[in-house]
Order: sequence, then structure tokens, then C-alpha cells
Amino acid sequence: MRSSNINNPATPGAMIRPLVVPLGDPAGIGPEIVAKAWAHRQLHGLAPFFAVGDPRSIEQVWDGPVARIAYPDEVASVFDTALPVLAVHDAGMVTPGNPDGEGARSALESLELAVGLARSGAAGALVTAPVSKTQLYRIGFQHPGQTEFIAERCGLAPENTVMMLAGPTLRVVPVTTHVALSAVRGLLSIELIVAKARVTARGLTKNFGIERPRLAFAGLNPHAGEDGALGSEEIEIIAPAIEQLRAEGIDAVGPLAADTMFHARARAGYDAAICCYHDQALIPLKTLHFDEGVNITLGLPIVRTSPDHGTAFGIAGKDCAEPGAMIAAIRMAASAAERRLTRSA
Amino acid sequence: MRSSNINNPATPGAMIRPLVVPLGDPAGIGPEIVAKAWAHRQLHGLAPFFAVGDPRSIEQVWDGPVARIAYPDEVASVFDTALPVLAVHDAGMVTPGNPDGEGARSALESLELAVGLARSGAAGALVTAPVSKTQLYRIGFQHPGQTEFIAERCGLAPENTVMMLAGPTLRVVPVTTHVALSAVRGLLSIELIVAKARVTARGLTKNFGIERPRLAFAGLNPHAGEDGALGSEEIEIIAPAIEQLRAEGIDAVGPLAADTMFHARARAGYDAAICCYHDQALIPLKTLHFDEGVNITLGLPIVRTSPDHGTAFGIAGKDCAEPGAMIAAIRMAASAAERRLTRSA
Repeated sequence: MRSSNINNPATPGAMIRPLVVPLGDPAGIGPEIVAKAWAHRQLHGLAPFFAVGDPRSIEQVWDGPVARIAYPDEVASVFDTALPVLAVHDAGMVTPGNPDGEGARSALESLELAVGLARSGAAGALVTAPVSKTQLYRIGFQHPGQTEFIAERCGLAPENTVMMLAGPTLRVVPVTTHVALSAVRGLLSIELIVAKARVTARGLTKNFGIERPRLAFAGLNPHAGEDGALGSEEIEIIAPAIEQLRAEGIDAVGPLAADTMFHARARAGYDAAICCYHDQALIPLKTLHFDEGVNITLGLPIVRTSPDHGTAFGIAGKDCAEPGAMIAAIRMAASAAERRLTRSA
Repeated sequence: MRSSNINNPATPGAMIRPLVVPLGDPAGIGPEIVAKAWAHRQLHGLAPFFAVGDPRSIEQVWDGPVARIAYPDEVASVFDTALPVLAVHDAGMVTPGNPDGEGARSALESLELAVGLARSGAAGALVTAPVSKTQLYRIGFQHPGQTEFIAERCGLAPENTVMMLAGPTLRVVPVTTHVALSAVRGLLSIELIVAKARVTARGLTKNFGIERPRLAFAGLNPHAGEDGALGSEEIEIIAPAIEQLRAEGIDAVGPLAADTMFHARARAGYDAAICCYHDQALIPLKTLHFDEGVNITLGLPIVRTSPDHGTAFGIAGKDCAEPGAMIAAIRMAASAAERRLTRSA
């Protein structure tokens, strides 16, 4: 059985502003996958985009044409023949695979500028390449990750945003994210689930054009607790949250047994799976869509996506990085930006 | 990408004794899927098998030929033209979808006889159809499930057996099974993981012919704990268990991030994934192989498999039950029985 692709973009049109793509850590695979995405622009019908970062980090891992630009307005005339790059911080000598503080500074300045361009409307959407948190922390970065930084720059508390991971046949939202499994129970609450589900439902409408999103909720325990025999969280927390959401008019089903909700026929029954913890959401997503998973931040005033993988320092500079997830992230961002434009028109 | 089938049976030969298939709850889909498996015997090259149970429970949901037998020896001459059934308890009127105590008694007597036949060598392997635990408990059944009953009849403590779920491209073992997620941490120990892994390694050799099994261990926490930042169980429990297994000569890798160990390329690197809890093992297995998952009990003196689904009372008697998992369970049992015979010859 083959499920249809649930994230088909609208036809990439010229009506959105060019997308901005900060290169992330210059010693990671970011520069290479952004360049390769540009090289595949026609095959995948990619909307015009431009990179922000140190152009040399691209030039030393890629032989294709790079065009330095000063303003996003130049992208339209350049994009057909070269990868447009808006140069920021000079990262000095970059050695692929060997990150350092200068690279982190370059990544942070690129991100800051890119968020500003997206916020101002000069760029149509933000697609971030991977950064090294370790290096960012070394230079004094205070946020847990790029997402929290972007939320703050957009004037939002991070808890009002939602991390959704999306592949061609599945979208998942982990209600709790990077915490020990033993901490999940203490963090789960009716309020948290309701809040994340509301943002998810609105995000599915705004970014994916789904007018009446169907949300499926995973139980925390095996077989969704078997009516309390294998745990009480379904009865005490998840079911009441679902009831509240239904009362608000949101299409919500569950709590479902997590092991039987991700096969092809089951996936056809919902638009997003709301999961209790990181691995419950990420195991099915990456099992099915390891090379094409996209992280999209819902709840922001701007469109923001990123490929769902890291800097991959181990393979940086070897010309073997796969641009599939970056291409998927660019496509999803363009599609979401166009939908928002259409809706607000 | 398409992974090759890791559970390809050896050519089904005539050298093993016929397999015994107790029908499970007569009001469930057991009788229908066993009959349909027989109907597909040539397409799937199934080794000869016989059912144990009430023949009428088959006859009222299936129009094919049924032959009542008195001894397993009769299977050889009957199997080509009819489904051989060894009749036990008369369950009275069976209404598909409406289980009762008589049906449970029939299921239990069928199981008891089938285990005896497999233990004695009169049957080559045991393939169990689904039972209703609720109904079994009503008639005084004392074991948590069929597996524990079978282990006891084989003179083994249940904790010395291992539940493995196997599909065409993935085998998983949950170290803890049907317990609340909050209870998992208290049950996990170096000793438990080592014991389950030893039985798994031996079982892969005996049943699947893998001389040097490769075991991959999932971490409990996101990203396998990120060196302790997201939980200490990987450092305190899982890594020491892996060290001990390696010292015993077992090929063991991990703890691995659970979300990135189940995509196609990752699966090619191991023969079984050892998981910390139910959903960690069952989510990837059922996401990939919902209709063809087989439960195989390792550590028993006999071969025992079962389809990885329940009685499905809701669809019983409607001629719409899919026999795929039962067929896969019969194939796997035959293959394992032949391997054991070859090894012991």
C-alpha cells in the first residue's frame, strides 16, 4: 500500500518573497545541502531562495555558481543562474567537520539576520540549516536551540509554539520534547496537551490548508492503558484534554494505542498525531521518513521549517551529504508561505 | 528502498512433523484465519499443519473442506485435500463475535492438547490463534496469557522466555512488556537486559539460523540520554549490560537513539533490536509490518509462534479477516522447526 503524499505543496509561484536560508554551522553539512538544493531547484520546482552566511563555506565544498547579493530583491534576477548568498560574518578559515567559536558566531549572526528579514516581510519564509548547540553555548548563546531563539525574536514564549515533524505520509507533534523519559509524566497536563493541540490545529489550517484538521492522540501507556489496568494517565490527563478540545470544536480522537496508530491505514485517519514524548513521535516519523523529515515550528507569525537532522560533522566536506530533507524543508516552507498569502489576501 | 526479507523460511520440507494450530477463541477470527491459511497453502508453500478445536467453529464461517482426524499421523494423507482438524471440547453453539465461557473452555483445552502434542514431538511446532484473556479469566485461568501457560507446561519460568515480534524487515524484543510506562524504570536492570539478550541471541541461532546474531540496544531516553544530559539509565543500566554481553562474546551495540535505529539502512545493521519498553519495540514493528507481524516465544524447548493480533471479535464471522499474519506465523514456525531438526541431526 502506498499512502498519498500529505504535504504536497501548492504550485510554487512567484508571488511569495524569496525564502531565506541561514547556513547554520559553516563546518557542518549546511552549506553543502543548501548548495545541492539549489542545484536541484528545477527538478523539485523550488521557489527562489537565498542563503545567509559565509559564502566561502559554500565555495570550499561545492563547485557550482555562487552570487553574492546585498538585498533580497536581487534574488529574482540571480536565482536561475547562481545560488544567491547574502554574506554576513567572516568566519575565517572554516574546516568542514571541525566546528569552532567563529563558526558559531557566523551561524548566530546569519540566523539573527534571517529572522529579521522574515519578520520584516523581505523574505517569504525562514528555512534553517543545522547549528551546533555545543559551539553556540561556548559563545554565550542562552537559548535551548534555534526554535526558542526564533520564538523570542518573534515576541513569543517558546511554550506557545509547537514543534511538528512532518514527512510525506505522517505528521507528529511531541507534547514533551528533550527531557528524560522519567520526567514526562510530571510535565504532562491537560493544559499542556490542550495548548499544544490548539496551536497544532491552527497551524495545520494556516500552513497546510487543512480547514478541519483531524488530530489523533496517543496514549502514554501500552494499549493506551487498557482502561486503567496499565496506567491512569489516559483517564486522568489525555481523555479530559481530548474532551475539552472537542468542546471547542476540534476534531480529536483518542487516546489511541500508540503501537497501532502509525501503519498506513491508520495514518489515513488523521492529519497529525499528538504524542506524549519524544520517541513516541520520532520513532514512527524517522522509521518511515528518515531522509525527508521536516521540522516545522507552528504558532509563529512567520513560516519556519528546517531539515530534521543535525550538523553531521562526521561527513561534512566529503560531498556525500543528502539534500533530501533540506529540499523538503524548502518546499514545505514555500507551500506554507503561499497558503498564508492566499488566506490573508 | 526495499529491504530484503529477513525471515525467509527454508524450503518447506516434509521432514518436520505437522504443525499444530489450536484455534483459540472459537468466537474470534481464529477459525477463519486458520481455514484461510490452509486455502492459501500452495501459494505460500505452507508445511502441513492441523487445527485443534471445535470443527463447527470453522464450518460455520468457512465453506471449504474440513477433515476430522484422530491422530497427527493422518495429516500427511489429508492435508492436500482438506483442512485437518483434531476435535476437542464441544463448545456448543458458537456465535462469531460473542465470546462466552464455553468458548474459553474450548480454547484452553485446545491449547493444552496442542502443547502436549508439540512437547511429545507428535507435532513439529505450535502456532497459536488468539484467545480472549477476559473469557479465560472468567473460567479460572491463572496465567497472564498463553505464553506463560506454555512456558509452565514446558517446565520454564516465564522470565526465562523472551517475546520477540518479527516482521519481514525487523525483529524486536521488548525487555519489559505489559506494564505502565512509569513502571518501566523500576523493572529495568542490568540482569534483566542481560538475561533477555542471552535468550534472544540463542533464539536467533536456533530458530533463524543466524550463527553470530547482532543485537542493537535502544536507549530509554531521547537521543539515548545524550551522555547523561537527558537521563542516566543508559549509563547506569544499558551500557553496563552491553559490556557484560560483549564480554560473553555476544555482538551487541548501543545504547542507540531509539528514533534513528529503525529506518531501512539502520535495520540492515542488526538481527534484533532490544528495546526498553512495549511501545518502543511495537511502534516501529507495527508501523512497518502491521499485517504480517509474528510473535515468536524464544527460550522454549518447542517452537511457538502466533500472529501478532487479537481475537478481533468485531469482525468475526464476516469473512473479512486477513490471514496474512497467521500465514507468516505458520511459515516462521515451520522454518524454525526445520532449522532445529537440521542442527540437532
